[in-house]
Amino acid sequence: MKNAILLIIDGLGDLPTPQTPLQAAKKPNLDRLAEKGITGLMSSFDRGVVPGSDTSHLNIFGYDPLICYSGRGPLEALGIGMKLEKTDLVFRANFATMKDGKIIDRRAGRIATEDAKKLEKLVNMKMEDVEIIFKSSVEHRGALILRGHGLSNKVTGTDRTNMEPICVAFDNRGEKTARILNEFTKEVHKRLSKDHLNKKRKMPANVILARSGGFLKEVPSLRAQYGMLSACISGGALYKGCAKLAGMDIIEVKGATGTANTNLKAKGEAAIHALKKYDFIFLHVKACDSFGHDGDFKGKTKMIERIDKELVPILAKSGAYLVITSDHSTPCSRKTHSGHEVPIIIYGKDERIDDVKKFDEISCMKGGLGHMKGRNVMPLILNLIEKAKKYGS
Amino acid sequence: MKNAILLIIDGLGDLPTPQTPLQAAKKPNLDRLAEKGITGLMSSFDRGVVPGSDTSHLNIFGYDPLICYSGRGPLEALGIGMKLEKTDLVFRANFATMKDGKIIDRRAGRIATEDAKKLEKLVNMKMEDVEIIFKSSVEHRGALILRGHGLSNKVTGTDRTNMEPICVAFDNRGEKTARILNEFTKEVHKRLSKDHLNKKRKMPANVILARSGGFLKEVPSLRAQYGMLSACISGGALYKGCAKLAGMDIIEVKGATGTANTNLKAKGEAAIHALKKYDFIFLHVKACDSFGHDGDFKGKTKMIERIDKELVPILAKSGAYLVITSDHSTPCSRKTHSGHEVPIIIYGKDERIDDVKKFDEISCMKGGLGHMKGRNVMPLILNLIEKAKKYGS
Repeated sequence: MKNAILLIIDGLGDLPTPQTPLQAAKKPNLDRLAEKGITGLMSSFDRGVVPGSDTSHLNIFGYDPLICYSGRGPLEALGIGMKLEKTDLVFRANFATMKDGKIIDRRAGRIATEDAKKLEKLVNMKMEDVEIIFKSSVEHRGALILRGHGLSNKVTGTDRTNMEPICVAFDNRGEKTARILNEFTKEVHKRLSKDHLNKKRKMPANVILARSGGFLKEVPSLRAQYGMLSACISGGALYKGCAKLAGMDIIEVKGATGTANTNLKAKGEAAIHALKKYDFIFLHVKACDSFGHDGDFKGKTKMIERIDKELVPILAKSGAYLVITSDHSTPCSRKTHSGHEVPIIIYGKDERIDDVKKFDEISCMKGGLGHMKGRNVMPLILNLIEKAKKYGS
Repeated sequence: MKNAILLIIDGLGDLPTPQTPLQAAKKPNLDRLAEKGITGLMSSFDRGVVPGSDTSHLNIFGYDPLICYSGRGPLEALGIGMKLEKTDLVFRANFATMKDGKIIDRRAGRIATEDAKKLEKLVNMKMEDVEIIFKSSVEHRGALILRGHGLSNKVTGTDRTNMEPICVAFDNRGEKTARILNEFTKEVHKRLSKDHLNKKRKMPANVILARSGGFLKEVPSLRAQYGMLSACISGGALYKGCAKLAGMDIIEVKGATGTANTNLKAKGEAAIHALKKYDFIFLHVKACDSFGHDGDFKGKTKMIERIDKELVPILAKSGAYLVITSDHSTPCSRKTHSGHEVPIIIYGKDERIDDVKKFDEISCMKGGLGHMKGRNVMPLILNLIEKAKKYGS
């Protein structure tokens, strides 16, 4: 059986100051794959377009976000294991701290995950005919479902620092939703404020903020489209959510945290084990993006070195085709996503080989893959593992 | 007069084992054209997408298969010189051998062309109000027209090895067609079984199988669109069919067989002769694809060497612009089409020149044309011969 592993190193691309983190990092294993494989540069959408992590992953999985993306809410909810109904309006949600009617900390002092779990049940309630369901994930984060009739995403979120957390309808379609969400905010603030756990906190988790609301748009699974069995290994909920949307199984790995302390070896070994069952493994590593957002060049460089040392050798000897790339650039100098291309390697025993010998944004400019787009990745993977349908005869 | 020859070497692209056939072949003439011309890589559709020969040629001729492709049947029928009416439902068809109601050889022991021709007239008949017209081409192959009212391509074909050759309608639109085709199968089996020629055969050609049914979708000719007089030189019927759809004249060349023994010199000389009359010559050579399907690396390499020696020098001294490429890769290691890019050369006296000196999948990664798509080929040819219409003023 031919199979493939797609390693997405989130936010990997960067700008030279005067080197990029990829250029500065000691990464002999990635460089060896570049040397023995074919390389290039990729834009998730198109040149210069700045992608989100969610839309970028959908693109790479072969789904056009213009058709199937409806906010981060439903993807986060899927990723933390919530079951969604078709008419559910789903928000990304946070525990936050409100004082005198204004949000003073939108992360409630980064409340610990186990404390957030204790408060979770207070958030569930019914408003008019709408059921409100909350599930916390990591620290202050979670997802919020509004389940009922006549809901609309033609509303603002309530996640507004130093302001009142008020939801406003864009037009009359959003009126009921805004009313429900505003009533919910008041009621959940009342309930949470009374909780003894919050009375001890300097930054009480006394309100829930909602943003990026949308309805899940279902898509045909990778299995339905290509007969390809696929699985996801990721710490972060959003990436699991994108993978679930594509019909991937989620492989939970102990120590896969979606942060810099993630257990890369465990993730790599889980991928190798999964190759026995699956045609395609999507393996996501988050921390380089987080270091980029923090402007931490050294942290990003060290994380690349850890990936090179602890993860890449395991994948390289798997016998599967490897595709290694990123969803977007997160330059340390900008502390946010940018529209600069990311490098990509395709490595496999019968694949064509170019003469690029290093895996970085500059070396891969000369790669044999040239300049690709995110939506090319899945057809290339299907072609590698011979799961592509022939178009014509 | 400026004119151009497009040489399509079918199935030319390959994978390194450790060299590709193009890398392994001695081909000084193709390499000289690469050196004196501009090169690149091309995907017929897009990266990784695996193309059929039919859809790929349509693409290269500038016709979007998503709009104008309706199965291989009508293109094959055009290619073997059948006249089609708009409502004709046309199938690719084979003589085959049926025993006890099942297909035991879908090529009727590769019946000789002249024997198939003798049986041809027995196949023509009328079922209900539908006229059934068959024409054989090479060996067991041919095309089958159903001419009448209420026909639909919402049906399966009957080409099913080791099974009954039964046509099933996908939905009620296909009911009449399925009924007619199934009655035809019975009747033609009865007629062919009685023929004295078949009584002598170990594998009697006692049934006709149909597949890839569709209706011809007419398109504006190259002449109508660009004022370009064009002609096709090909052994294979399918390629002539695609060319006819595009309004090309078909130049029949003695010894152009569509197989490894094809008379390359005669094809080349016919092309040179045709330059006196035509702006554009499409010259197709099939055998590299067949060697790829057979997994015959040596055969493919030798065929490339023959093309280089017997055909390329004739074309190179014609004074016409030359575009040399392929429709898709057919790697010997895979024995089927793949979605890997194919190399392309554009050569002409005033054309730009890059520094690539060899015509192969690896060298052309660095070519000045970069990574093209099939649909770019015809605009580039029109631009070369100054037949392109200016877009804007």
